[in-house]
Amino acid sequence: MDETERLLEVIRGHGAKTVGLQFPVGLRTRAVELAQEIESRAGVTCIVSADPSFGACDVAEMPVDLTVHLGHAPMPHLRYDRVFFYDLGSPPLTDLGFVDAAAALLPKRIGLLTTVQFRGWLPAIQDHLEKKGHEVHVGPPDKRVAYAGQLLGCDYVTATEIAKDVDGYLYVGTGEFHPLGVAMLLPGKPIVIADPERGTARDLGDLRDRILRQRHAAIARAHDAETFGIIVSRKVGQARMELARDLKAMAERHERKASLFLMDLVSPEALEGYRVDAWVNTACPRIAIEDVLQYRKPLLTPQELEVVLGERDWKDYVFDEIRA
Amino acid sequence: MDETERLLEVIRGHGAKTVGLQFPVGLRTRAVELAQEIESRAGVTCIVSADPSFGACDVAEMPVDLTVHLGHAPMPHLRYDRVFFYDLGSPPLTDLGFVDAAAALLPKRIGLLTTVQFRGWLPAIQDHLEKKGHEVHVGPPDKRVAYAGQLLGCDYVTATEIAKDVDGYLYVGTGEFHPLGVAMLLPGKPIVIADPERGTARDLGDLRDRILRQRHAAIARAHDAETFGIIVSRKVGQARMELARDLKAMAERHERKASLFLMDLVSPEALEGYRVDAWVNTACPRIAIEDVLQYRKPLLTPQELEVVLGERDWKDYVFDEIRA
Repeated sequence: MDETERLLEVIRGHGAKTVGLQFPVGLRTRAVELAQEIESRAGVTCIVSADPSFGACDVAEMPVDLTVHLGHAPMPHLRYDRVFFYDLGSPPLTDLGFVDAAAALLPKRIGLLTTVQFRGWLPAIQDHLEKKGHEVHVGPPDKRVAYAGQLLGCDYVTATEIAKDVDGYLYVGTGEFHPLGVAMLLPGKPIVIADPERGTARDLGDLRDRILRQRHAAIARAHDAETFGIIVSRKVGQARMELARDLKAMAERHERKASLFLMDLVSPEALEGYRVDAWVNTACPRIAIEDVLQYRKPLLTPQELEVVLGERDWKDYVFDEIRA
Repeated sequence: MDETERLLEVIRGHGAKTVGLQFPVGLRTRAVELAQEIESRAGVTCIVSADPSFGACDVAEMPVDLTVHLGHAPMPHLRYDRVFFYDLGSPPLTDLGFVDAAAALLPKRIGLLTTVQFRGWLPAIQDHLEKKGHEVHVGPPDKRVAYAGQLLGCDYVTATEIAKDVDGYLYVGTGEFHPLGVAMLLPGKPIVIADPERGTARDLGDLRDRILRQRHAAIARAHDAETFGIIVSRKVGQARMELARDLKAMAERHERKASLFLMDLVSPEALEGYRVDAWVNTACPRIAIEDVLQYRKPLLTPQELEVVLGERDWKDYVFDEIRA
């Protein structure tokens, strides 16, 4: 049974009359076609949520009987009310050349990591690498991560859980942010990206050092900030209000001012105009790291505010993670 | 008693521990200062909503005991739950030269119009103009418009209500969109802007014709669209789901495809990537008119979709308004 058939059964089971559809930006091209198909086959009205969706932390409430979320796996610890996670599966794995290229750059004992879209490939890749003599470990899922070996942009538990058993990591995927998080947490282990789109492999190399220099610069620029803006997300899986209040209190103990800012989408435009000297982001941890060059004022992680205020040593620098 | 005193009493009355603050973009410079003042005087925690706020149609729900909204007057027909509208009043009116300059361009019988920020000036301006021999009318408020003579970007009732009694309008304000809506609805009446920022007056002139040419072009470009995306707002005072469903059904009767798109903030980025030939906007009517050049695909008003589908004649073209 294909995934649309399974969805149609769930729609019938709920007696749904209206169905909401949520897509990450990369899947928008499929939105109208899927909406039209569901409408004609199920006799319902579909409503596409056009607010961008960045993860299963970010399932928007919609005025519908059933919400269909595409492109992300549910976070096991979150409770979703009438949400169907439409599983797009993984594309066919036709050529393992890019995996061989990556493995050649790695030691014998390796951890295997990927994102949700390629998770279907992991058993075949593990098998292939073991036949070539590698010892392959795949970290188990947990409260926030649905699948073995899956990395989120804010949670690297499937890497850290197996750190003692491996001497390096092979990451199957196209971007650099996910493995970068692993490199920040586990500086001693080489990480190689096996990129299925380019069909090649590349070492993360000095990216970690470059990011650390950027973070050091942001902390230095925020050193004399009088007023901090503490950003809190509205998104269900990113809302860390308690942490934000703690950070505000910490800043005030150090005789700085701090105000809380609640927002749905963190963007340069959303922060324009306020009389704030530096921002601290408790929403998605990716934002401060990946988008740093887009922001005029320093944008810190919670741990970086601790460094600014002298509550944490730079040598104890860690990447921000959201943990359940 | 100043407005902050009044707010502090309301905070005490509600026993509020957390207070949300909502600002239009132009008032963001005052956000941190007001939040700090309220926190220190009322012993509460303030949370600034950083999502942009465009009107009293757009009062965001916040996880707080009391929400403070600045820069807009409440819409009488909407029910607000624990919302305090902080009235900033009008700036001092020191010089009436710009009013005289505007009146010189107008006939004897005129209607007086403005936005909420200058509403405090209307009695003095009316008095001044009457002394100069003008017959001055000010339209009464209604279900969506709180104050006499107040224009919204989506509601021109204070102009249309007095149309039969006047031969032209004097608009006190800085922008052109509000009086433009009046010009679209009442093509026979001259409209002059008395601009307090520049201290000068200007006739709306051929702006109406230029906008009509733009709208005609958008309709022409959408003529052969196969798939329409119907935009519905999440904002409390802009949500016209019933209208959107009617438009979808109308398009389908004419053998076009149509899908509904729900979003908080309508922006070019929010519409990128979807396989839609033309958009129809049931959210804030200003967007299709003012921001037309930012959108790659035609962005129509509901009435313009009717023209595209042959359900309305171009000669019966009207501006979109949201009415209660």
